[in-house]
Amino acid sequence: MQLTVNQISQLVQGRVAGDGARLIRGVAGLEEAKNDDITFLKDAKHQKKFASTNAGAVLVPAGTESHGKTVIEVANPQAAFVRVLEEIEKEKKTIRKGIHPQAFISPSAHIGSDVNIGPFCIVEDEAVVSDGATLIGHVYVGPRAKVGKNTLLYPHVVLREEVVVGERCIIHAGAVIGSDGYGFYFAKGKHNKIPQVGTVIIEDDVEIGSCTTIDRATTGATVIQHGTKIDNLVQIAHNVEVGPHSLLVAQSGVAGSSKLGGGVVLAGQVGVADHVTIGDGAQIGAQSGIKEDVKPGAVMFGSPAQPLQETIKQMLLVKRLPELFKEIKKLKELLVHGTK
Amino acid sequence: MQLTVNQISQLVQGRVAGDGARLIRGVAGLEEAKNDDITFLKDAKHQKKFASTNAGAVLVPAGTESHGKTVIEVANPQAAFVRVLEEIEKEKKTIRKGIHPQAFISPSAHIGSDVNIGPFCIVEDEAVVSDGATLIGHVYVGPRAKVGKNTLLYPHVVLREEVVVGERCIIHAGAVIGSDGYGFYFAKGKHNKIPQVGTVIIEDDVEIGSCTTIDRATTGATVIQHGTKIDNLVQIAHNVEVGPHSLLVAQSGVAGSSKLGGGVVLAGQVGVADHVTIGDGAQIGAQSGIKEDVKPGAVMFGSPAQPLQETIKQMLLVKRLPELFKEIKKLKELLVHGTK
Amino acid sequence: MQLTVNQISQLVQGRVAGDGARLIRGVAGLEEAKNDDITFLKDAKHQKKFASTNAGAVLVPAGTESHGKTVIEVANPQAAFVRVLEEIEKEKKTIRKGIHPQAFISPSAHIGSDVNIGPFCIVEDEAVVSDGATLIGHVYVGPRAKVGKNTLLYPHVVLREEVVVGERCIIHAGAVIGSDGYGFYFAKGKHNKIPQVGTVIIEDDVEIGSCTTIDRATTGATVIQHGTKIDNLVQIAHNVEVGPHSLLVAQSGVAGSSKLGGGVVLAGQVGVADHVTIGDGAQIGAQSGIKEDVKPGAVMFGSPAQPLQETIKQMLLVKRLPELFKEIKKLKELLVHGTK
Repeated sequence: MQLTVNQISQLVQGRVAGDGARLIRGVAGLEEAKNDDITFLKDAKHQKKFASTNAGAVLVPAGTESHGKTVIEVANPQAAFVRVLEEIEKEKKTIRKGIHPQAFISPSAHIGSDVNIGPFCIVEDEAVVSDGATLIGHVYVGPRAKVGKNTLLYPHVVLREEVVVGERCIIHAGAVIGSDGYGFYFAKGKHNKIPQVGTVIIEDDVEIGSCTTIDRATTGATVIQHGTKIDNLVQIAHNVEVGPHSLLVAQSGVAGSSKLGGGVVLAGQVGVADHVTIGDGAQIGAQSGIKEDVKPGAVMFGSPAQPLQETIKQMLLVKRLPELFKEIKKLKELLVHGTK
Repeated sequence: MQLTVNQISQLVQGRVAGDGARLIRGVAGLEEAKNDDITFLKDAKHQKKFASTNAGAVLVPAGTESHGKTVIEVANPQAAFVRVLEEIEKEKKTIRKGIHPQAFISPSAHIGSDVNIGPFCIVEDEAVVSDGATLIGHVYVGPRAKVGKNTLLYPHVVLREEVVVGERCIIHAGAVIGSDGYGFYFAKGKHNKIPQVGTVIIEDDVEIGSCTTIDRATTGATVIQHGTKIDNLVQIAHNVEVGPHSLLVAQSGVAGSSKLGGGVVLAGQVGVADHVTIGDGAQIGAQSGIKEDVKPGAVMFGSPAQPLQETIKQMLLVKRLPELFKEIKKLKELLVHGTK
Repeated sequence: MQLTVNQISQLVQGRVAGDGARLIRGVAGLEEAKNDDITFLKDAKHQKKFASTNAGAVLVPAGTESHGKTVIEVANPQAAFVRVLEEIEKEKKTIRKGIHPQAFISPSAHIGSDVNIGPFCIVEDEAVVSDGATLIGHVYVGPRAKVGKNTLLYPHVVLREEVVVGERCIIHAGAVIGSDGYGFYFAKGKHNKIPQVGTVIIEDDVEIGSCTTIDRATTGATVIQHGTKIDNLVQIAHNVEVGPHSLLVAQSGVAGSSKLGGGVVLAGQVGVADHVTIGDGAQIGAQSGIKEDVKPGAVMFGSPAQPLQETIKQMLLVKRLPELFKEIKKLKELLVHGTK
């Protein structure tokens, strides 16, 4: 990147105060920024860091005291900073254009226009790769699977047969969508496989992290609704449904047939049992275990989880157990020996 | 799928009551089924859902009241439903036949008959791929590794050198079998690698989930015995032994040298410490942590785990701690001030 | 392997007592060893197992009573055993030499001398693969990424654009380095992506387990310092920094911007919240959750974690809650009814 403060200001529709001709070469946080970096002041809380930043320029809310620094006043500094990041990303994310000759594409696959398919990708029979989609490399798109418009699949992504991925999705390296659900029935002294003939539907604008696994349904579909963002190493079992705009943080797992509403947050390493319903907007604290239905908007914590405030109150009292046991002992002595 | 009720009845050796000529095009659960789907009634518990199902046909236990629906009476409705799923699976799981020209197969590898090896697979020196085995694509079979008869390896499966996989196994996408165990010794101010020269033995009829990792032994072998089913994102460390017909649910982890018996169940996100023995038929609740030996048949829960009933009793009392602290306070006042 | 006891003794600079001509064909633990295996006695604690071992030869500390067995006396039996394992590893780890014709290497990539690149590897534009590095197969090295000297990348490793990996690193199969950090901001009714334009820096002598994911920084770099060893299925979020010689055991996760010191140990399935600092040499017990800063050298346990001794004390008292509740009931009756 090499842009003047004035050029950046134009990009983010801001107003410069200070040295508009200064050359900016990078981006960084308030504390790490050097004198050719641009950074941003999210809100007044970070004033102190702002006063001592070495940044060459700072995106600030309109009306911020500049402390003699070069600033760009904008309505929303974070959104403006993201706009700058997007410019940098364009430079960095150099995608190999076109269909690479070392990819394998079935003659019966349907490939849209402006599609990029990198080396060693497999696009199987009757699969669809829609306009503007990109498969970086080593991607597997199974028979009759469908990749939506402008969706980006990183290396080693696997879409098993008939899986449907919407538009503008991003699936990170090593994620596996549509493996068999974990379904067996015990008979004749062994676990017998229940064929998993359903599929997975990933709606538009979903992002899925590296090495995350989303299993196909036994019948019907496992569904991730639009706008939901899933982190790395998350497990989604067969027949799960996740509503729109939910956040599933790293290493969380959702067992079979559970239903998460919209705007739900699972913090890291959360476990959700099977056949559970979590209402819209519920928030589940890190490492919690959900084994019963959760009401919309509830904030839960613990394993097994309870409402956050109850869990915290109990945890504080557990910390006071040594003191309590001593007290009981004293009371007992008092009672038995009558000494006060 | 497109079968009449009569045709399905023949497939499952059932007896039709109702419209045997009705055309069935899909499968679904009791609640989701549409009028061209077939479903099944597992047991009397689901009578209500059965009465209101829209399914075109229902597999039911012999002697079930039909409520005017088209039913197929069978000995075991779940097994019959699985039989129908198997038919559908045959249609869906269209496997690319033969050895693909874009695979790399070492001249010293041994390839059986009726083997399918998809694009971009690597079969290394002296590796064995037995009769009827399938490698979908992007599979890595390391030097001297062995794939048993009729075993199915999904995309991006990695079998490191000398790993042995039995017959009729299914290994899902992205699973890694035979990586180095996590072994180091500290000397000269750093962690020094202990070479892991053992291997992994996966016996017959084992299923392994997506992105599951099973490490090779330091010396000897990490062993997964026959019929055991492992879910996604499970970690099995070096020198672990898992008995036959066990179930290891998603995101569980077993540390080095631990031994699990036969018929053991680890529910999701369980952790098992190193050098621990878990007896036959023991069941470990979700998110539990096992750090000591577990007796055969025990049902354990909690982190660290205790017998389920003890953990539950303690958890219920922890919930009553606020009430207990209040009571103690009252008792104390009573004692000190003498007021009742 | 096929070496006489004398030859092994020479390898480890030991002193033979017993049958130096005996042929050794394998390695094993004290209990598993057969009469053509060599094993080692780590310390006096294992004397009993030593006395009953069937091993053909045993590496022992100088001055150990031989019980009539063939022994090789050495200064450090474990180090000597590792030396033997290294010999065996040389035989087993047969690496395909040279650049395979079925790899894809960008004309603008820089490939050092003595580099091995296996089938179906991708080395993208301006990437660097340094002298002596090995990419086994299906490895993806993104644009401008850098692989240090003598580093070993197993199948399906992904290094995204600009990621830097140091010298003598080992990255196991399916690990993903440099995926986008999980960063969004909520506006206009949806989660908007914050482009992650930073990178990941892996220093020298780092080992990374299978299917472990290390995200690139938003800006700047996620850093793993030299000598740190990371196990399988670990999640490292954006902008995390891990000091030198730390151990992160399987299925642990570290959230965004947290800083771990040197010599830190995270046992299995530990979770570390975002923006937390863990001091040098701190040890965190399995399944613990860290949500606040941890002092250097602290030993922590529990979710949320406390100093180990406090957590243990509280856990023991929780187990005594049933007894405590009974006691309180008795005290109350005593007080109310006045009966002793």
